[in-house]
Amino acid sequence: MKEIKLFCPATIANVSCGFDVLGLCLEQPGDEMIIKKSFTPGIQITKIIGQDLPLETEKNVAGVAGLALLNELKDFKSGFEIEIYKNIKPGSGIGSSAASAAGAVFGINQLLNQPFSAKELIPFAMQGEFLASGALHADNVAPALLGGFTLVRSYEPLDILKLPVPNQLIATVIHPQLEVKTADARAVLKHTVPLKKAITQWGNLAGLISALYTNDYDLLARCLHDEIVEPLRSVLIPGFNEVKESALVNGALGSGISGSGPSIFALSKDKITAQKIGDAMATTYKKFEVDYDVHVSSINKEGIKIL
Amino acid sequence: MKEIKLFCPATIANVSCGFDVLGLCLEQPGDEMIIKKSFTPGIQITKIIGQDLPLETEKNVAGVAGLALLNELKDFKSGFEIEIYKNIKPGSGIGSSAASAAGAVFGINQLLNQPFSAKELIPFAMQGEFLASGALHADNVAPALLGGFTLVRSYEPLDILKLPVPNQLIATVIHPQLEVKTADARAVLKHTVPLKKAITQWGNLAGLISALYTNDYDLLARCLHDEIVEPLRSVLIPGFNEVKESALVNGALGSGISGSGPSIFALSKDKITAQKIGDAMATTYKKFEVDYDVHVSSINKEGIKIL
Repeated sequence: MKEIKLFCPATIANVSCGFDVLGLCLEQPGDEMIIKKSFTPGIQITKIIGQDLPLETEKNVAGVAGLALLNELKDFKSGFEIEIYKNIKPGSGIGSSAASAAGAVFGINQLLNQPFSAKELIPFAMQGEFLASGALHADNVAPALLGGFTLVRSYEPLDILKLPVPNQLIATVIHPQLEVKTADARAVLKHTVPLKKAITQWGNLAGLISALYTNDYDLLARCLHDEIVEPLRSVLIPGFNEVKESALVNGALGSGISGSGPSIFALSKDKITAQKIGDAMATTYKKFEVDYDVHVSSINKEGIKIL
Repeated sequence: MKEIKLFCPATIANVSCGFDVLGLCLEQPGDEMIIKKSFTPGIQITKIIGQDLPLETEKNVAGVAGLALLNELKDFKSGFEIEIYKNIKPGSGIGSSAASAAGAVFGINQLLNQPFSAKELIPFAMQGEFLASGALHADNVAPALLGGFTLVRSYEPLDILKLPVPNQLIATVIHPQLEVKTADARAVLKHTVPLKKAITQWGNLAGLISALYTNDYDLLARCLHDEIVEPLRSVLIPGFNEVKESALVNGALGSGISGSGPSIFALSKDKITAQKIGDAMATTYKKFEVDYDVHVSSINKEGIKIL
């Protein structure tokens, strides 16, 4: 195989009670990437369509992630050209950089006849995340590479689990075209949290994990709360409370900030409800005259796909 | 049925990463209780063997829990006599008061032809816990009444789940005869925790829940850590670090404080290892010339038993 074409999906990190540990892979939206073997060693980003992003390898998340993989193999001879067709908007909070970083390492690994497992690719993709955000986080690249729900149990050592996905689950995501700077999203976090709230949060996360294993949608709904981060970060997203409320009123199991925002997600258990939630969410931003995209997507159980 | 004889088991609360939410039911040790219908309305504690505990209904955890049940039914005519044969030492940290409170409501519910489900009995038993410790906690009475591992997902509203139990799991508990005052165990807790440690803790708890559903003993072992409470409370238990270390060296999946101590538990996956761990744990307290009891027990999946 000399060339591979990929679909690289968007992802929702945190998922309310799972701050910094949970992630979820979507069927839509997603980028496409074409990766080709090349005679020039290293990684060349030859084309980026749809977004204005750097083509220089060391400044591009796909480039950096791909180089991390080649460095690990001590493979200084292989070369790859990458074309990226962006549909996921950078800064949207649904894993735009993760899709590119994960896609690059997935594709290169395929073209090298899979020296690495999907889990082993995660640390390389994390190098792309580090370039994008200054933090080595895995909660978007893990679901992009593994599919479904993923749990980053630990970073040191890196220990990532794939969790089961209740079959009927559907995600609705609204991306209001507002800028939430990563630095601001970080700055509002507090270094300490009240023990009582932490207990509530881990009780909810433990319940959510149980709900995934037992297909218990009522339990899932009871657990989809974030006592700690959402109250702080939601103030950076105008309309958040109204959008969330409209999702819940229209039948969402739960709703919260996707990653560090500004996208807001909701989960429900059928497509008609998910679409209705999307329409209801949109009402707020229509009123505010803020542009938005709405995505209604089932859960992507396999992650990146070969097209 | 006019009379019922019960086995009321010991329980381990917290289980390392599950502070205030997880509990686990043991086969041994346990109290016995005999509950009889009586012509005198209300609850009479007629006999307590094995420990010096108050016979007055309002000062006895079994009495208070039983009255809570009768009050909920607005049943001012039924009367019950309770005999308690204590094998679980009060103040040991393995749910002595919970066994009595849970046993009382379980037995009375049986003699009244089960107006309540096992889960519905939990709030009554919690009234006994409130008498014993001043806190309405459920992490011992829930596993005593439901068996196995239980999760207190939320207190308001009360939402308790029964979790699966990996078949080979065995608990070792050492109870050194040291006094840890509940007030001291509370006082050492901090009202706030670093966000980073809270994330580690909920990652571990989420992993532990996953391990219970998948019978993954290696994952269970990786998750059995408590970054938040154990470092603070273990200083109240002389020898804790040495005992824990000896358990791990001898093959324990994990080890930690049972409830608020002074008992120390370890989990392993076979009886020979569990016994070896018990012997190793005992070495420390032999050296310190502190009396101790060691219990090796499989996990009790049903909770309180009718004898």
